[in-house]
Amino acid sequence: MSNALDSLPRSDGFWMPAEWEAHTQTWLLWPVRTDTWRNGAKPAQRTFAELAKTIAHFEPVTVCVPTEQYENACAMLGDNIRVLEMAANDAWIRDCGPTFVLNQHGEVRGVDWIFNAWGGLEKGTYFPWDKDDLVAHKVLEVERLARYRATICTEGGALHVDGEGTLMVVRPTVMNSNRNPNWSQSQLEVRLQHYLNVEKVIWLEDGVYGDETDGHIDNLACFVRPSVVALTWTDDENDPQYAISQAAYDVLSNTSDAKGRPLEIHKIHQPGPLYMTEEEAIGIDKVAAARYRCAEDRLAGSYINFYIANGAVIVPTFNDPHDEAALATLRDLFLDREVIGFYAREILLGGGNIHCITQQQPAPHDS
Amino acid sequence: MSNALDSLPRSDGFWMPAEWEAHTQTWLLWPVRTDTWRNGAKPAQRTFAELAKTIAHFEPVTVCVPTEQYENACAMLGDNIRVLEMAANDAWIRDCGPTFVLNQHGEVRGVDWIFNAWGGLEKGTYFPWDKDDLVAHKVLEVERLARYRATICTEGGALHVDGEGTLMVVRPTVMNSNRNPNWSQSQLEVRLQHYLNVEKVIWLEDGVYGDETDGHIDNLACFVRPSVVALTWTDDENDPQYAISQAAYDVLSNTSDAKGRPLEIHKIHQPGPLYMTEEEAIGIDKVAAARYRCAEDRLAGSYINFYIANGAVIVPTFNDPHDEAALATLRDLFLDREVIGFYAREILLGGGNIHCITQQQPAPHDS
Repeated sequence: MSNALDSLPRSDGFWMPAEWEAHTQTWLLWPVRTDTWRNGAKPAQRTFAELAKTIAHFEPVTVCVPTEQYENACAMLGDNIRVLEMAANDAWIRDCGPTFVLNQHGEVRGVDWIFNAWGGLEKGTYFPWDKDDLVAHKVLEVERLARYRATICTEGGALHVDGEGTLMVVRPTVMNSNRNPNWSQSQLEVRLQHYLNVEKVIWLEDGVYGDETDGHIDNLACFVRPSVVALTWTDDENDPQYAISQAAYDVLSNTSDAKGRPLEIHKIHQPGPLYMTEEEAIGIDKVAAARYRCAEDRLAGSYINFYIANGAVIVPTFNDPHDEAALATLRDLFLDREVIGFYAREILLGGGNIHCITQQQPAPHDS
Repeated sequence: MSNALDSLPRSDGFWMPAEWEAHTQTWLLWPVRTDTWRNGAKPAQRTFAELAKTIAHFEPVTVCVPTEQYENACAMLGDNIRVLEMAANDAWIRDCGPTFVLNQHGEVRGVDWIFNAWGGLEKGTYFPWDKDDLVAHKVLEVERLARYRATICTEGGALHVDGEGTLMVVRPTVMNSNRNPNWSQSQLEVRLQHYLNVEKVIWLEDGVYGDETDGHIDNLACFVRPSVVALTWTDDENDPQYAISQAAYDVLSNTSDAKGRPLEIHKIHQPGPLYMTEEEAIGIDKVAAARYRCAEDRLAGSYINFYIANGAVIVPTFNDPHDEAALATLRDLFLDREVIGFYAREILLGGGNIHCITQQQPAPHDS
């Protein structure tokens, strides 16, 4: 089933649904690299397992693990979660996994983006990334779903849609000499429209300060429903995040979505600022082929990096004074879902958060 | 999903269906060990791929491959076959895979036998066998099917059922100091009855001459439909196979099945005898932890080692003068299926044949 389709989702009548639409299941990878995850990745494995179990209360979960972790992962994940073998270079299935698309006739397919570890040889996070780049293919193979191999390099975390024709992206995560050199914004926009079947692309200038993905949208801002957006924020004008969030706010408040609606913007104050401690950093291997993670590194903490599951929203928390306000805002925004705070510092230490390590497989629409 | 059920198939209302009942799919593993398969396993990989494609004309096929063979296997298997990552010690999914069982309410489960490479430290074929022993678990995990972890050591190739309460086994493949030491025949019979939900166990004394499994039933004799059996045969009284087949014939012609019916026995003359050539043997690694495969080894060739797929019977052939008679007999026995000869010497060189490298997943019965 390995061959990719020659066509494009839009011309085949497929589109990317919003994350809040019904899911068949959630996919995760299993953390093992000791230059990303401290202390032999054991604290991260416990956190991933706890997250998988939390999501599994709401929908089926599949966790893909390297062969040598199969038995341990089964033991940690328990009865209710499917474990599969799958090699990867790290554990960010939002980015290296497929972006699922569906049509009106009950069919689901996947877009398999070119993946280069957020920049390849030019400031990418690690080398090599060959196994990551096969993850989307492998996931689709497991599910016997057809695959579009994209001709552009991007990541799932770079792309937030409302399911009604609107896409938000942060420019440097798509239009960048380290991803798609020599492509113009309009050329990239056409490709994104073809793969995701959207009409309107909203381009933001910068992502969260210190985000090693060049600033994925999924840490900065997201749709919570059509025409309603949440945006990470800070009131501290001296924080470098201030100007970034203010610039995003300005763009979002002066645009409209694909259906011509203005956007309602909800600010969610960031945690911290948060920094890696000496005790945390000392447990991480220092390896030339991966980004060094050091004490006092600023962590790109954001409550926006939540995951919407069937009937639930799983929100990263940090034992931070801003946790409660973030949860309260999201409870107001998701009145029909259970909003669950999940202590996620361990994921943040690896460079991402809950949204980055999950990938929803949408349920087919009824034909 | 890793925990095994505490109960037994029979008490839960599950039984093993006959191979000729409808399948959901066929499972294979991918050959890689260079001490089993000559010339870097490349000829075997071509043969397995050709077999997988042949079966895929009749039903879905999944081939499980080691991580490092993923891309190559995809390329060799093409568009129509699902490829999954799965570590194993060799490629005999009939033996290390699950034995599927089903109930009257549309549910399918699997029995996960203890596997020790056909004898463990006492004349087993290779060491270690830890990855093989996880294959049944992993296959069931992929399909999200519940699992019975058996308390006895045996292999799928040791067990042929008619789906109506009768099991045929060869005694040394189940009752043996190298499988289930200190178990009596009646104790083993009770366990087999509980796992497969059969009433009657027919015990044969010996399998095919030179068969390194201690003589699996699936190389010696099989049901082709209820109360009808095919048996490998030779007319050469000086061949050691003669007495073995004669003894099996005597048992089978003097017993009845679970429903009290006598058995109709069809003899199928064996190929050869066949021997490994010098040219074949020289391409096989000689390794202490695996059985040596040498020039002039007698190969346990048998036409009985065929596989029944939806609408087809795939029969091993050997460019042997007996091929045509075997195919003719099987065409008479399977009037409603396409009987396909498949040149299978490459599989035989590894120690088994088509039935040994396939495992059917039965379709659920309608509830």
